[in-house]
This record gives sequence, C-alpha cells and structure tokens, in this order.
Amino acid sequence: MESINYLSIRYNKDEKKLEILDQRKLPDIEEWLICDKPEDMITFIKQLSVRGAPLIGVAASMSLYDHVLKNPQLSKEEIIIVSNQLREARPTAVNLMFAIDEMMQLKETNNEKRDYSAEKLGEIAIRIIRNEVDMCDKMSKYGASLIQQNESILTHCNTGSVATVGAGTALGVIREAHKQGKNIHVYVDETRPLLQGGRLTTYELEREGIPYTLICDNMAACLMRDGKIQRVLVGADRIAANGDFANKIGTYSVAILANHHGIPFHCVAPMSTVDIKCSTGKEIPIEERSHTEVQGASGAFGTVRWAPKNSKTFNPAFDVTPMTLVTSLILDTGIITKNDLNKLSE
Amino acid sequence: MESINYLSIRYNKDEKKLEILDQRKLPDIEEWLICDKPEDMITFIKQLSVRGAPLIGVAASMSLYDHVLKNPQLSKEEIIIVSNQLREARPTAVNLMFAIDEMMQLKETNNEKRDYSAEKLGEIAIRIIRNEVDMCDKMSKYGASLIQQNESILTHCNTGSVATVGAGTALGVIREAHKQGKNIHVYVDETRPLLQGGRLTTYELEREGIPYTLICDNMAACLMRDGKIQRVLVGADRIAANGDFANKIGTYSVAILANHHGIPFHCVAPMSTVDIKCSTGKEIPIEERSHTEVQGASGAFGTVRWAPKNSKTFNPAFDVTPMTLVTSLILDTGIITKNDLNKLSE
Repeated sequence: MESINYLSIRYNKDEKKLEILDQRKLPDIEEWLICDKPEDMITFIKQLSVRGAPLIGVAASMSLYDHVLKNPQLSKEEIIIVSNQLREARPTAVNLMFAIDEMMQLKETNNEKRDYSAEKLGEIAIRIIRNEVDMCDKMSKYGASLIQQNESILTHCNTGSVATVGAGTALGVIREAHKQGKNIHVYVDETRPLLQGGRLTTYELEREGIPYTLICDNMAACLMRDGKIQRVLVGADRIAANGDFANKIGTYSVAILANHHGIPFHCVAPMSTVDIKCSTGKEIPIEERSHTEVQGASGAFGTVRWAPKNSKTFNPAFDVTPMTLVTSLILDTGIITKNDLNKLSE
Repeated sequence: MESINYLSIRYNKDEKKLEILDQRKLPDIEEWLICDKPEDMITFIKQLSVRGAPLIGVAASMSLYDHVLKNPQLSKEEIIIVSNQLREARPTAVNLMFAIDEMMQLKETNNEKRDYSAEKLGEIAIRIIRNEVDMCDKMSKYGASLIQQNESILTHCNTGSVATVGAGTALGVIREAHKQGKNIHVYVDETRPLLQGGRLTTYELEREGIPYTLICDNMAACLMRDGKIQRVLVGADRIAANGDFANKIGTYSVAILANHHGIPFHCVAPMSTVDIKCSTGKEIPIEERSHTEVQGASGAFGTVRWAPKNSKTFNPAFDVTPMTLVTSLILDTGIITKNDLNKLSE
C-alpha cells in the first residue's frame, strides 16, 4: 500500500494517517477529519461526513487496513468483529458489503488461507481503489458517447468525485462530455433534505468550470416542459436483477417527470451495484431518517428549523425507480436498455 | 362595522384597534402587529407580515376604513390619495386592486354619489370580508363532498386561513372534511424555496388538530407509489379559460406524479381567480425571483446559505398546470371537470 490522495480521501503511509474530507462542510469549508480507528470511520459514515456508495466502500476498506497496520497483535477473530462493524455502518450500501467481503477474502472457501495481514489487506484495498477509478472511467466514456452537442442535462444528488475515488458516476459522464467539448449545461436538483446537489454537485461543477444552474427539486418539471432539459443522469445505490434501482430520495419523481416529457433518463452505476440476489426493486429495504432533517436544514452553514417543533415527518433516504422508466443503465461493462434486459430474461 | 376576529386579522371597534398576525414569525411565534395608520399596513404588506391575496385585500380595506373612522375631518381628495397608496402596496395582487376599487365605489360612475363616510366604508369592508368567508365555505363544502372516509390527502404550499379571512381554498376543503369526521390524514409538501407548506400549513393543521405529515417536495412520488395518497388538493393564483392554472412552483410536478399514479388531482379556487381574458395557461406570465431564495433558506427562523455564494439559479415563483392533468376544478360556483369544459367549448 502506497500513500493515496483523492478529492475526498487521503492516506499518508509514513504517518499512518487516514483522513477524509468532511463532506458536510462543503462547499464553504474544506475540512479533513482524521480517522484514527474504525469507530471513527463508522461515525463518519453514519453522520454522512463520508458519503457516496463507492467512497464508503473504499473508506471502510482503508480504515480496516489502517487498523490492522496499527495493531499487529489483533487475532483473526478480532479483525472479523471489526470488519462486521464496518460492514453495518450503512445497511443499504451494497458497495460497502462487497468491499468488506473482498477485504475479508470471503470468496476463499478455505478459511485457513484467508490472509488478514496488513500487507495483504493493503494490497486488496489498493485493488479496490484502482478498480473504482477504472470503472468510473469506463462509465464516463460509455455515457459521454450518448451526449449530443449543446445538451442540457439534469442531475440529482451528488454522484461526483466527492462520492468516490474516481471521476464519479452520473457526474463522471458529465465531466467527460464537458472534457470532450460538447458544450453542455447542467441543471442541478438541490436534493432535499440533505442538499447534496445544492452543496456538493455545485461545488464540483464550479471547481471544474462546467456551467450549471441550481434549482429546487420541484422546479425540474417546469424546465422539462419548456424544453430546457434534454437528458437526465442519476446514480444508483443498488440495482435489482430486473433493472429497478434504489437511489437518493427524489430520483423516482424525476424519472416519472422525464418519462412524461419523453426525455431520456439514465442511471449510471458500476456493475458492482447490481445485486442479482435482489430480483426486483420491491426487495430493496428503504432506510428512514430523522424528523429534524425535514423540519429544517442543518450543516456547516448552520442549523435552522422552520416547521413546528413536534411536527411529524416522513423521511425516506432513498426511493426505488422501476426499470420501466429507465432509458438505459450505463454500467462500466456497457449500456443496457430495457430491451436488453427483456432478451436476458427470455 | 362590528369587531372582527380571524386567524390573521382582528379589529376591536371600541378601541379602534386594527391588528394583523405577523406571518413571517410563524410557526414559532404568534405576534400581533398594531396597524395604527395606512402607512403601517403598507409596510406590513411590503415586508410580507401580511400575505395571501385575499387577506391583503381585506387588510387594506380595513386599514382605509379605520383611518377614516379615526380622522373624520379628512376630505374626499385626501381619502383618494391614501387609497391609492394602499392599492400600490403590492402591484401583483389583483385582489388588493379589486378590494380598494370596491371601497372607493369606482363602479358608481357619478362621482358625487360615492360615499366615503366611515359608516359606508365599514359597510363595504364587512361585505368584502363576508364575501371571502362565503366563497371559502362554498368551495369547502363542494370539495369535502368528494372526500371519502379515511383518505390521505397531499397538499402543496399554503392555502389556508392565514392567507384569508375564510377557511382557505384547498385547506378549507381539508378543514371541512375533518369537521365532517372523515378521519383524513394530510401530507404536506414543504414547498421550496419559501417553505409555505413547512411553516404555515403545518401551523394551521396543528392548531386545528388535523393529523398531518410533513414531507420534502421530492418525496410525494414515493408515497403515491406505496398507495399512501388518495387525493391531491392545491390552490390557484390564476385560472385560464381552458382550465390551465398557475399556482406555486411545484404544483405542475405534483400533477404529473398524481396522473402517473392514477390519483385524483383537484385545484380549489374562487371563481374570481378565473381570468377569461386568458385563453390558455401559456399566456400566464411567470415571475422569477431572487437567487438567494434557492441558494439557501431565510425567515424568522434565521438565514442560511448552503450553495456556493455565486451559484446561478433558476427560481420561478409559479408554474402552470394544464387542465389535461386536472380531475376537477373546485370553485365556489361548483365542481368543473375536463368534460364540462369540453362541453362548454363545443
């Protein structure tokens, strides 16, 4: 394992110092949090300082490696306990599960052959990272091949480099299309309640000089009707075998609006997001979050509450978009349409 | 003119005391502002302490009456000057114009016959108020006749008593259905960017003990899919002759979502909102508002900005919903469906 340095995670091998960029404080403040032990990382994941499915997997793997490196006396059993704690930090994040499974070499059926040395774990962690970068590059190139000159693209939530170690998923495609000189414009859903679009996607687009316009989530339909949006690109947290996928709350709503206006709607995600054990979207469990998030807004920018103090809220973190509303899935392995899936299931 | 006592405006005849509820401070603080003279009311309207088209008209009329009652020496000319100042407090408010025109008896072509005595102005003001209350009652009863036992109803923005002297439009229907013991539940869209749902609709529902759940605007689709919403009720700022209507931004989006899920979608508004000179929704101009509203949130609860400081935004105050997505318009004159309109245009 060498030192690494990405937009949201870095590791100094000599100092054994793992740090993550506190995404809650963006866009105004760029603050790095030191992750001294797995408990820290679990807290960072739970409090959304670390977020984005790919990044969570990488961050948890790095934390496990760092922990073993710092504590060479740990037994295999102790490492398994820690790995399980990390795996459970965000139950819906399938990448986290896969990354930890890979670190723990669960494919190796012979228990004895599993090697939990720091050296081996570091080797696996770096492989996971390289794989992420590589997958993002592939998705970006497949996706950008669909984008026409002068398109305006709507995106939801944040799917960029802050959420991964690569170029991102939906935002990776946008980045690549921009790099190819396609003169694109991006409409950014603010993505209530946690405002990942308003805070993070704007931050990344600004950083890269890609023209964008921020909107409230309820304004997208109005733009679509006026012919101002030619394409929708979103990410995914988990894709079922039939193409249904879970993504940030509000994605399903955007899919219906795009469908109503005849606008192509794509989900950009690595193949590793596909959970073949999950046959349809109905089987994906949806986490509900705290009332306070809907009652107001909170972040490094401050904390405000505008709703009555004891108001009851509904606050699902994700929703499920059926494949029937999806023009194509843009994976690192290629582009899959409804027809392709139909053929597969025949 | 007797004393009056409504949710957002009250008048004590004996003390000659006109007060309005400062809507900017809701839901946490219920503060009444004394309106000693028309200049005070103009300030209250401009600073949005008084808001809602019907309420502004009533408030300005009461202020004019109160001013003449307190100052019996005023000449006709002086009263006209004050009435013009009140009329201009909010240029887009058509109800304000109408109310002042009625107070000043502009329909009476013989200038000499116009009677600006306190007694006459009080009589007209109370007529304006009774008319508002009466219209709301009629809409509420027509609308409530559609509501089934145990329905969950989604509403957008605030259409209740804080913005009027009556029961409200969409919220008036909800209030009436609750009163009739229909065991309804209300889902409240927070209504970004100005959060009228999160701040005001929640406040009114709580006050009346009507069960509700606050959601972010992008969560409605998810509830609809889960069969948790049986009906959508919204208000209107302006209805075109073909039934297309302008309402708070986000309404069009909700209409598409309801349509997609086969959920009845109704617009509740007084007949006076129908602008027959406007043939379709395309002719309704849409006001765009400031960047800062989308970049963050601001109110008595505080001011926060989460987006990059110079981020470009799109911020239309309203959108237009085509009649093709509307199950029926609930007016004070009755319920109108697409078929009724088709018959009319045949």
